[in-house]
Amino acid sequence: MPYVNVRITRTGVTREQKARIIAEITQTLVSVLGKKPEHTHVVIDEVDTDNWGFAGQLTSDIVARADARK
Amino acid sequence: MPYVNVRITRTGVTREQKARIIAEITQTLVSVLGKKPEHTHVVIDEVDTDNWGFAGQLTSDIVARADARK
Amino acid sequence: MPYVNVRITRTGVTREQKARIIAEITQTLVSVLGKKPEHTHVVIDEVDTDNWGFAGQLTSDIVARADARK
Amino acid sequence: MPYVNVRITRTGVTREQKARIIAEITQTLVSVLGKKPEHTHVVIDEVDTDNWGFAGQLTSDIVARADARK
Amino acid sequence: MPYVNVRITRTGVTREQKARIIAEITQTLVSVLGKKPEHTHVVIDEVDTDNWGFAGQLTSDIVARADARK
Amino acid sequence: MPYVNVRITRTGVTREQKARIIAEITQTLVSVLGKKPEHTHVVIDEVDTDNWGFAGQLTSDIVARADARK
Repeated sequence: MPYVNVRITRTGVTREQKARIIAEITQTLVSVLGKKPEHTHVVIDEVDTDNWGFAGQLTSDIVARADARK
Repeated sequence: MPYVNVRITRTGVTREQKARIIAEITQTLVSVLGKKPEHTHVVIDEVDTDNWGFAGQLTSDIVARADARK
Repeated sequence: MPYVNVRITRTGVTREQKARIIAEITQTLVSVLGKKPEHTHVVIDEVDTDNWGFAGQLTSDIVARADARK
Repeated sequence: MPYVNVRITRTGVTREQKARIIAEITQTLVSVLGKKPEHTHVVIDEVDTDNWGFAGQLTSDIVARADARK
Repeated sequence: MPYVNVRITRTGVTREQKARIIAEITQTLVSVLGKKPEHTHVVIDEVDTDNWGFAGQLTSDIVARADARK
Repeated sequence: MPYVNVRITRTGVTREQKARIIAEITQTLVSVLGKKPEHTHVVIDEVDTDNWGFAGQLTSDIVARADARK
C-alpha cells in the first residue's frame, strides 16, 4: 500500500514532468517490491522558494546570490 | 495529543464539508481514545489533481478519461 | 483519493481501537465527500512520549508531573 | 540529515520571519545534535485557517468568534 | 531540494531493496528535474500492518482473510 | 497552531537533547510569530540509517565508508 510524498521547490515543473515522476516512482515500487499500481499513490508538493530553507537560509536567497554571481 | 493530516484532491470541497470532517474526526479520537479536543489538531491539505498520482497516472488524466467515456 | 495520517502518542492503543479509528475516519470521508473506501488509506503513527513535545516540554515529563500530583 | 516541516496557519507571515525561523531551527540542530547546516532542510507550510481544525472547529471560526468578543 | 517520503507496510523489505528504491527515485529526480543528488533525501517509513488502514479495514485483517482463502 | 515535525537519523539522541530541541523550536515560534506554547506541538521522528537515503545511497553505507577512511 505505498504512499509517496515528493516535496520539491516550485520552479515551473510541467505537467509532463509530473506525469513522468509519478510513472517512474510507481514503476520502481512495482518492480522492486511487487506493489500493485492501483494501491500506489504519489503526491507532489511544490513549495515556494521563500518557504524552503537549506543550510539555514531561504532557498530564494541562495538562488538570488547564485544568479548575481553569473 | 493527536495531530491528523487529511490529504484529498482539490475538487471544490466546501467550508461546511471541511467543518464536518474536522468535527467528526475529532469526535472519533475523543470517543475511541479519550483524547481531549483542545489537544487535537486536524489539518486538511487539498492537492491539485495534476499533483496526485494514482496507479502510475495523474489523477487529472484519470478524471478526463472517465469524463470522455460518459 | 484520500490519504489520512493520524499521529498519536504511544500509550497502549489496542488493535480494536485502531480498527475503529480507521473505520470511522474512512466512513467520514465516504459520507461527507463521497470518497470510495478502496481509494482511502489511513495510517496511524504511534509516537513515543519522549519524542512528542507540547508547550515546549516532553509529553513524558508532563505525564510524570501529572501523575505526581495525583 | 535533518528534515524539518513547520506547519502554521497562513496569517501573513513575512519573508523576514520565515528567514528567522529557518535560521534558528537550523542553529538548534547544529548546536544540540552537531548536524551540518548543508544537510539540514526546513520547509514551512502555511495552511489556510479554513483548513486547520482545532478542538473540533475550524480555526477561521475560532478567530471570528474571538474577534466578535473584542 | 527534493525530500521524498516513501511509506510502505512493514513486510520484510530488505536492505538491498531499500537501496534500490532510494537509488531509482533519486535518479528519477535527477533525470526528470535536473536535481542534484547531494540535495536529495529519500526517507522510507515501514508501517506495521496493524497501523495501515485500507478501505476501512486494517491491512493485517485484509491479509489474514486473503491467506484464509488460499 | 504550529505543528513541527523534526526528522533525523537514529543515532542515539538522548532524552535531554530531545528536550532541548523541543524547548528551543517552541521558543523560536513564540518569539518570531507570537504563537502560544500550549498550541505548539513538536514531534521528533528518529529514522534508521538503513531507511534514510542521501545522494542516492543509504546513510548507513555512507557512514560505513566514512568510518573505513579514518
